[in-house]
Amino acid sequence: MQDTSESYEVPDISDIRKAHQRISPSIRQTPAINEKALDELLQCQVWFKCEHLQRTGAFKFRGASNAIALLRESGVRGDVATHSSGNHGAALALAARLDGRTAHVVMPENASPIKIEAVQRYGGEIHFCEATQSAREAGLAKLVTAGNIPIPPYDDNAIIIGQGTAALELLQQVSGLELVITPVGGGGLISGTALVASGLGVRTIGAEPAGAADTATSLKQGSRVDSWQPETIADGLRALVGVRNFGIIQNHVEAVLTVTEDEIRNAMSLFWQYFRMLIEPSSAVVLAAVMKHPELFSGRNVGAIVSGANIDPLDWAKLTSEST
Amino acid sequence: MQDTSESYEVPDISDIRKAHQRISPSIRQTPAINEKALDELLQCQVWFKCEHLQRTGAFKFRGASNAIALLRESGVRGDVATHSSGNHGAALALAARLDGRTAHVVMPENASPIKIEAVQRYGGEIHFCEATQSAREAGLAKLVTAGNIPIPPYDDNAIIIGQGTAALELLQQVSGLELVITPVGGGGLISGTALVASGLGVRTIGAEPAGAADTATSLKQGSRVDSWQPETIADGLRALVGVRNFGIIQNHVEAVLTVTEDEIRNAMSLFWQYFRMLIEPSSAVVLAAVMKHPELFSGRNVGAIVSGANIDPLDWAKLTSEST
Repeated sequence: MQDTSESYEVPDISDIRKAHQRISPSIRQTPAINEKALDELLQCQVWFKCEHLQRTGAFKFRGASNAIALLRESGVRGDVATHSSGNHGAALALAARLDGRTAHVVMPENASPIKIEAVQRYGGEIHFCEATQSAREAGLAKLVTAGNIPIPPYDDNAIIIGQGTAALELLQQVSGLELVITPVGGGGLISGTALVASGLGVRTIGAEPAGAADTATSLKQGSRVDSWQPETIADGLRALVGVRNFGIIQNHVEAVLTVTEDEIRNAMSLFWQYFRMLIEPSSAVVLAAVMKHPELFSGRNVGAIVSGANIDPLDWAKLTSEST
Repeated sequence: MQDTSESYEVPDISDIRKAHQRISPSIRQTPAINEKALDELLQCQVWFKCEHLQRTGAFKFRGASNAIALLRESGVRGDVATHSSGNHGAALALAARLDGRTAHVVMPENASPIKIEAVQRYGGEIHFCEATQSAREAGLAKLVTAGNIPIPPYDDNAIIIGQGTAALELLQQVSGLELVITPVGGGGLISGTALVASGLGVRTIGAEPAGAADTATSLKQGSRVDSWQPETIADGLRALVGVRNFGIIQNHVEAVLTVTEDEIRNAMSLFWQYFRMLIEPSSAVVLAAVMKHPELFSGRNVGAIVSGANIDPLDWAKLTSEST
């Protein structure tokens, strides 16, 4: 699925502004929220951009909506396909359905029940496969051969600029932000964010679990790590960073911080204590990183993108009760 | 604590507009959200006003903030006091703290741990008492004698107009709403809502659990029921409707619908399925009532105020797993 050439056309903030206009009718403009009582604890002012309240429970709906809207604008008809064990599948299912298309989603047999239900609820057609990368890719290839249009989860300009619209909104909603922090998985969210933030003179920082630190490692060694065995509860961040995404990160992201599993669990608890919302582990890495690095954040005005809420409440309770 | 005279000065929408200006610096302007996929199931368009995302996790922060701001405007100094087993205590604790005051909260010994923690987190001082109404009132009387200013939870004009600001925002955020539905407990939220909605030509409907149907019963018999043994999982709706509140409901609320415990549990599940947010049972009554009464809601543009998110996720999981 990935183009292996080394140069790509890199979008900029004007592309993201256009994407925002394009998808505005279907996305939710999510709130940016702040709680002074939490700020006192963190010793900085943090505005959380609530993408976990986005339709389908994750920022992924922005990129999927933009990809579908671009097909519509170009007059390209037909159904779409992807492989996903996570939030991209549900997002694409809804975005496609709202445009009168069907999304075919290749999912591993061991995908979590709530993710399967979500794809079904939004009208996606699931094609189960073995839980291996090769089976997923073979499943997708078959669907594409049958005429469906592939929509990749992150290593794609339409997706990147779609995800960037979250940061665009955040920087419009809250003035005076000095830096924005996002989770890093495949890199769709952070690369879109970095394009917006750098265009507005704002710094971008990433956060990822130490057990899925392929991006931090890639930055350190100066080239993209192409193999990593992820071990983390943050299931949304287990993917390897994409090729296009890594290029943008190298050029526009100041640092990618890593946090431990316990720091993630504690941040999930803390977010609930102050905001009464459950966020998935992948979201909590940003709060964990802010707490861990006062030398970077203390006294600053920080925007933190909270990426998703797709976790079973029982799993949330189990994970947070294990925190130290 | 209640004035027993039969006439009170009844506020109107202009008082609520003033209250909104007064508390705007400290409250969150919560989002109003809609999900077409859920609308298709409900056969009407429902915009949910997310007061469960209000500071302290409930609309109660609006009324408490207004009461405190009025004290400040009048130059009245000093600490405040209330009795609460629920969301009003935490809301008053934060509102007082932001104004440099301490809130003294009389709480029954058997109050839930998350409610106790919330009061403490926001700097409230807890005074435990036996779990009886008379012990709560005696505890509060003692605090008032000691010089603290009592802030009642609902039967009070400052509180009513503060709670009304949620509906004011909702009707500004979403145009074309034909009716607004809110939960009914003590009646602070619905009475403030009804004053706003009637002022704008919008209908108001209430929802309460069948096991705490004192307001529906009061409306039917034409006078306020002054005793009821509530039996419901919706702990925020167990209070008897207040005197002032009932007067406003009689004049401005079209109907108060009742729902069963199972309907409440199902609505909690459904809200999570489509919005990935946990809401407490007291909030879910509005969605349950919309589902139960297509003859009232079908084809309509409905605003539904979601009142609170203060439920332990394990309790949420337990309650929803018991639904049929």
